[in-house]
Amino acid sequence: MRIKIINPNTTWSMTEKIGACARAVARPGTQIVAVSPAMGPASIESHYDEALAVPGLLQEIAAGERDGIDGYVIACFGDPGLKAARELARGPVIGIAEAAMHMASFIGSRFSVVTTLGRTIGQARHLAEAYGMERFCANVRACELPVLELEEPGSQARERIVAECRRALDEDGSDVIVLGCAGMADLCEHVADVLGVPVIDGVTAATQLVESLVALRLRTSKRGELARPLPKPMAGLLEGFSLAR
Amino acid sequence: MRIKIINPNTTWSMTEKIGACARAVARPGTQIVAVSPAMGPASIESHYDEALAVPGLLQEIAAGERDGIDGYVIACFGDPGLKAARELARGPVIGIAEAAMHMASFIGSRFSVVTTLGRTIGQARHLAEAYGMERFCANVRACELPVLELEEPGSQARERIVAECRRALDEDGSDVIVLGCAGMADLCEHVADVLGVPVIDGVTAATQLVESLVALRLRTSKRGELARPLPKPMAGLLEGFSLAR
Amino acid sequence: MRIKIINPNTTWSMTEKIGACARAVARPGTQIVAVSPAMGPASIESHYDEALAVPGLLQEIAAGERDGIDGYVIACFGDPGLKAARELARGPVIGIAEAAMHMASFIGSRFSVVTTLGRTIGQARHLAEAYGMERFCANVRACELPVLELEEPGSQARERIVAECRRALDEDGSDVIVLGCAGMADLCEHVADVLGVPVIDGVTAATQLVESLVALRLRTSKRGELARPLPKPMAGLLEGFSLAR
Amino acid sequence: MRIKIINPNTTWSMTEKIGACARAVARPGTQIVAVSPAMGPASIESHYDEALAVPGLLQEIAAGERDGIDGYVIACFGDPGLKAARELARGPVIGIAEAAMHMASFIGSRFSVVTTLGRTIGQARHLAEAYGMERFCANVRACELPVLELEEPGSQARERIVAECRRALDEDGSDVIVLGCAGMADLCEHVADVLGVPVIDGVTAATQLVESLVALRLRTSKRGELARPLPKPMAGLLEGFSLAR
Amino acid sequence: MRIKIINPNTTWSMTEKIGACARAVARPGTQIVAVSPAMGPASIESHYDEALAVPGLLQEIAAGERDGIDGYVIACFGDPGLKAARELARGPVIGIAEAAMHMASFIGSRFSVVTTLGRTIGQARHLAEAYGMERFCANVRACELPVLELEEPGSQARERIVAECRRALDEDGSDVIVLGCAGMADLCEHVADVLGVPVIDGVTAATQLVESLVALRLRTSKRGELARPLPKPMAGLLEGFSLAR
Amino acid sequence: MRIKIINPNTTWSMTEKIGACARAVARPGTQIVAVSPAMGPASIESHYDEALAVPGLLQEIAAGERDGIDGYVIACFGDPGLKAARELARGPVIGIAEAAMHMASFIGSRFSVVTTLGRTIGQARHLAEAYGMERFCANVRACELPVLELEEPGSQARERIVAECRRALDEDGSDVIVLGCAGMADLCEHVADVLGVPVIDGVTAATQLVESLVALRLRTSKRGELARPLPKPMAGLLEGFSLAR
Repeated sequence: MRIKIINPNTTWSMTEKIGACARAVARPGTQIVAVSPAMGPASIESHYDEALAVPGLLQEIAAGERDGIDGYVIACFGDPGLKAARELARGPVIGIAEAAMHMASFIGSRFSVVTTLGRTIGQARHLAEAYGMERFCANVRACELPVLELEEPGSQARERIVAECRRALDEDGSDVIVLGCAGMADLCEHVADVLGVPVIDGVTAATQLVESLVALRLRTSKRGELARPLPKPMAGLLEGFSLAR
Repeated sequence: MRIKIINPNTTWSMTEKIGACARAVARPGTQIVAVSPAMGPASIESHYDEALAVPGLLQEIAAGERDGIDGYVIACFGDPGLKAARELARGPVIGIAEAAMHMASFIGSRFSVVTTLGRTIGQARHLAEAYGMERFCANVRACELPVLELEEPGSQARERIVAECRRALDEDGSDVIVLGCAGMADLCEHVADVLGVPVIDGVTAATQLVESLVALRLRTSKRGELARPLPKPMAGLLEGFSLAR
Repeated sequence: MRIKIINPNTTWSMTEKIGACARAVARPGTQIVAVSPAMGPASIESHYDEALAVPGLLQEIAAGERDGIDGYVIACFGDPGLKAARELARGPVIGIAEAAMHMASFIGSRFSVVTTLGRTIGQARHLAEAYGMERFCANVRACELPVLELEEPGSQARERIVAECRRALDEDGSDVIVLGCAGMADLCEHVADVLGVPVIDGVTAATQLVESLVALRLRTSKRGELARPLPKPMAGLLEGFSLAR
Repeated sequence: MRIKIINPNTTWSMTEKIGACARAVARPGTQIVAVSPAMGPASIESHYDEALAVPGLLQEIAAGERDGIDGYVIACFGDPGLKAARELARGPVIGIAEAAMHMASFIGSRFSVVTTLGRTIGQARHLAEAYGMERFCANVRACELPVLELEEPGSQARERIVAECRRALDEDGSDVIVLGCAGMADLCEHVADVLGVPVIDGVTAATQLVESLVALRLRTSKRGELARPLPKPMAGLLEGFSLAR
Repeated sequence: MRIKIINPNTTWSMTEKIGACARAVARPGTQIVAVSPAMGPASIESHYDEALAVPGLLQEIAAGERDGIDGYVIACFGDPGLKAARELARGPVIGIAEAAMHMASFIGSRFSVVTTLGRTIGQARHLAEAYGMERFCANVRACELPVLELEEPGSQARERIVAECRRALDEDGSDVIVLGCAGMADLCEHVADVLGVPVIDGVTAATQLVESLVALRLRTSKRGELARPLPKPMAGLLEGFSLAR
Repeated sequence: MRIKIINPNTTWSMTEKIGACARAVARPGTQIVAVSPAMGPASIESHYDEALAVPGLLQEIAAGERDGIDGYVIACFGDPGLKAARELARGPVIGIAEAAMHMASFIGSRFSVVTTLGRTIGQARHLAEAYGMERFCANVRACELPVLELEEPGSQARERIVAECRRALDEDGSDVIVLGCAGMADLCEHVADVLGVPVIDGVTAATQLVESLVALRLRTSKRGELARPLPKPMAGLLEGFSLAR
């Protein structure tokens, strides 16, 4: 099967890292296609960034449909454009916050999310609630790390994340850690080794979930809210997004 | 004061109708600027349409900030881009679903939403929950009317809406009706007269709320989640959305 | 239009302050009538005080109906008698906790309430839940100030309130402050200036909301729970509260 | 022990019926004192009626405290003045809606409330939520019976209540019935016999709960929200409600 | 009436203590039968222990039904097997966590649970939610005391429990304490005396509730979820649990 | 990897069917071991049946741990003993209701559960809530089919299930069906083909989830609630369940 992992920001070093992490856990027969959209922000740290990442993301979903992709992962912890993507796709689409939070609920009693900037805490909380995972989410914590610092070789990102995770275990009464940024995917194993509790990265979790849904032949329901969007004119810069009838 | 009402679709006949409804309730000193974005869908009937309406909407918010606009109304019942708009704006930004639902909670015990296509029911329910208005929302009902049929002179839209509102009162135990589309703004008075219960249109409700917040000198909090987005590069078609430092 | 603001306690110095604050934000054509009832407690700091403030409050609503008042504000943060008042009134009735909490949800992600005595925290939490605002309410905090100390010229009330607001911002992760007593109405601007975040006083917020509902011709629904009470005999001291058929 | 059952309306035929029902289930050593207040409405069918029933109710609590009463039952399904009564009382105070709903949760999976007028449904739902019993409450249904019709010898009240209870079992998936008015207390046994499921009357349920709390020496906590109200002047007609220091 | 109190662990010293506490509060005509099952764990400190305590517990319920027992108390704070027991029993069955939490909601605004090992906190929280008592539960706290240490004469259990209760009152804003283990039943009076707030032991609370339900002739509803289990073969070690037709 | 699927009832024809369905979706390298316990009920249709299925289930988990099993599926829609099993297991344990409900939330907006006997509806609703899936669960419906009728060659089970599923889609507004019994696993493909919407069987869904968790090296957290149970004596018939230190 072919799974497309879309990093909705345009920082390709992160996209490659994400692709590598996904490939490391994918099943033998699975082909992982990891891309960034042709348009949008270099990183996603606000609702504004999320909103502007979505058109490029949807373009990649539409291209994937033409290419016969079996399922998709949206590799940003805000899960931008998830429902719109589901309308476009025949197969399943999973967001990495969604994947990580659900997986956490299977192996522990309560999880803490450790994310980048404090201003994104609200979105993580909102997603936990929208997914029904609020009851498992003991806390959302920020390291006040800008996303792109995770891409800088000499940064102290890893140390700060580990330190915040420790505080989470001590203060929140949680027994599982969820990493709150796709750019942390490569740190997952290290953090788990250091802490001695399960640590979940959404990129690999979502990859597995999409593979599972495809294996089960479960596709996005086309009855009701997630049916294919009605074709209609799109004006201006976004003209190219008009759907064919 | 100057209030900008953004109809996030590109159908200007609807925009003019919305502007007229807002002006009819605005205070003497208020100037209403009603616009559609330069890009985006002709109507909004899916998550896909919503997602593609947001960049044009944000462009209008950014322009409004340069023009010294005091507050904004997002005139689509899905309240697309609301949080992103709040990050950009100094003044208040209100969505019409948000406005209508809150207002309904002040004058009755439970409201029913009567909207256009059934596929949008999920989004209305989601907003009711996100705003804390779920406890007041007895039901969300659809007339299965495409949005643009509301713009067609000879259509039976009005009759179908009235009929669905009657069913809502009879079957849902509600005592207030919320109209679920900006394009129904001009029908509000008629429907209220016919039904004999309060009927709320979000366009006029949101206009009043924005005027109130401006009069109270209450602006969007810039501490935390809704602070101005960090400046960063935007690639491709959306290059123009990079924020100045 | 004429709006009646009822301070449900009998301390007229507070009533006058409240009236002045409301007048300062009211629209040019609005006449503000600020009153205290002829009966009831000097301040409201318990469920007992609230319960005994309600008959006098309802007397003022009934008088207002005879006088053709367009809408009402209940100017006590416990929102006493709100539903009973809505049954009596044709126009809208808004409580100040209700107004302040809803307004807070429009301009920030989470608010803290800063109130007087700790024993009133339960009621504020109860209202937040009843209005659906619990999800926006990060915390309710008390300064342990008796209500009437707010009326004493040389008191340190202002300093203690500012100090508690600062703790709220630091410890609760909130981005908006709601003042939890009508007697704090005149401190709102000062506290906002000092803190640099939006600070909401319910008296002015409710005044604006009532003006908005009246302008929208939205009155209390008389279908169902809030219909006019059935006439029936009232015995003893409260004989005068029997409604005419 | 001595338990005071306060029927907060002034219809003494109902008070006597309530007293008799309570006495029929009380323990051998318990003395039941059933009273109506000296002031207030003849029946309680609105928030207005509830509000005006509370001062007389509180007068009876205050008198009970002087008389050394051990615990109280508030015998109206809206549980008016419950928290204010708890502030005044040293011993426990239980409302009949509270008692009936909690008891229902112990013996079935979901209950239906069958009450008098439709306009009181909102209050019953509100109480179910405030007590945490919403999850057990399948529905609240009204017979559109005025309260005082329950006192009329030749009325068809009993038949209409039984018929509505049957509909509740058939349509709501409930397995327990809660009678939604103190005036139905004497019908409980008949309805249970006819339906073959548990039927709960709040008057007898609350009597048992108060006896249990007294036997366990559990009194209302005087730390925090339910501490004795602070003494302060009461003006006008309600002057007599000032508490002694 | 005869009430059977089942301590689901096999430590008879605890069973006798529990029986004595129940007898101390039971009504004159009530006979208390306190037992431990013939099979199962010596103490219950995990989901595993709970699961293995249930067959023995059900055996005691089945025996009770043959003996004409009127009602049952499950005397372990995890309320193991409560719904299964209700299916078997004609009369009422109450768990001690259930009893204590409901009683707490009648006499205060928020309670803290003080329990034994931290690993049981999740189960106490789960029960609070399942019973609708979450809104009254300020916190669940553990003393990290093994259950059987409560049975050891010279242990410091009492001091540690009192110390944790004090912290609960200071830090949680609660006004009632719930003791989180049947083995603490004999400490209830002492802890209440020391703290000066209501302290609730579930064993005595449940005894009173069962007596109340029996006095009200309220039995477990046999319509729906709690109907008697269908007879069917049981294999292996549990063969004896097959129900007669 | 080796995954053990435990059908907690003792009907081996169902166990074999379940095993075959799991094998049909398992990854090439996965070995599926499907078993029934040596003790317990022939089918699970009540809380009593569930309770008595758990010891045998836990015996199978304990045996699996000795055999080096990587993960477990509990193949009964009531998810009996799930938390106790997680305490025993090092690897992941997933219940089939849990798996099916989570998977449904990924591919649609709301699902209906179609189950066997009406008396099990309460348990399915309880699980939906405990997993946070209540918001996605439009309804739980029963066909009033005894579980073992699913094993009878000539039964009309399939027709009745399809008919109930159709009603679910028409009346509940759902877009995904969840089959509410492990014994329906082999009907999943047929029902999906007939209905044209996604239909989810929990056995295959759980198999995939366990495989995914194992592939991600995510094991049950041993910090806190799900840590290995403390060793202690077990008495009587269950003596063999004492854990080694």
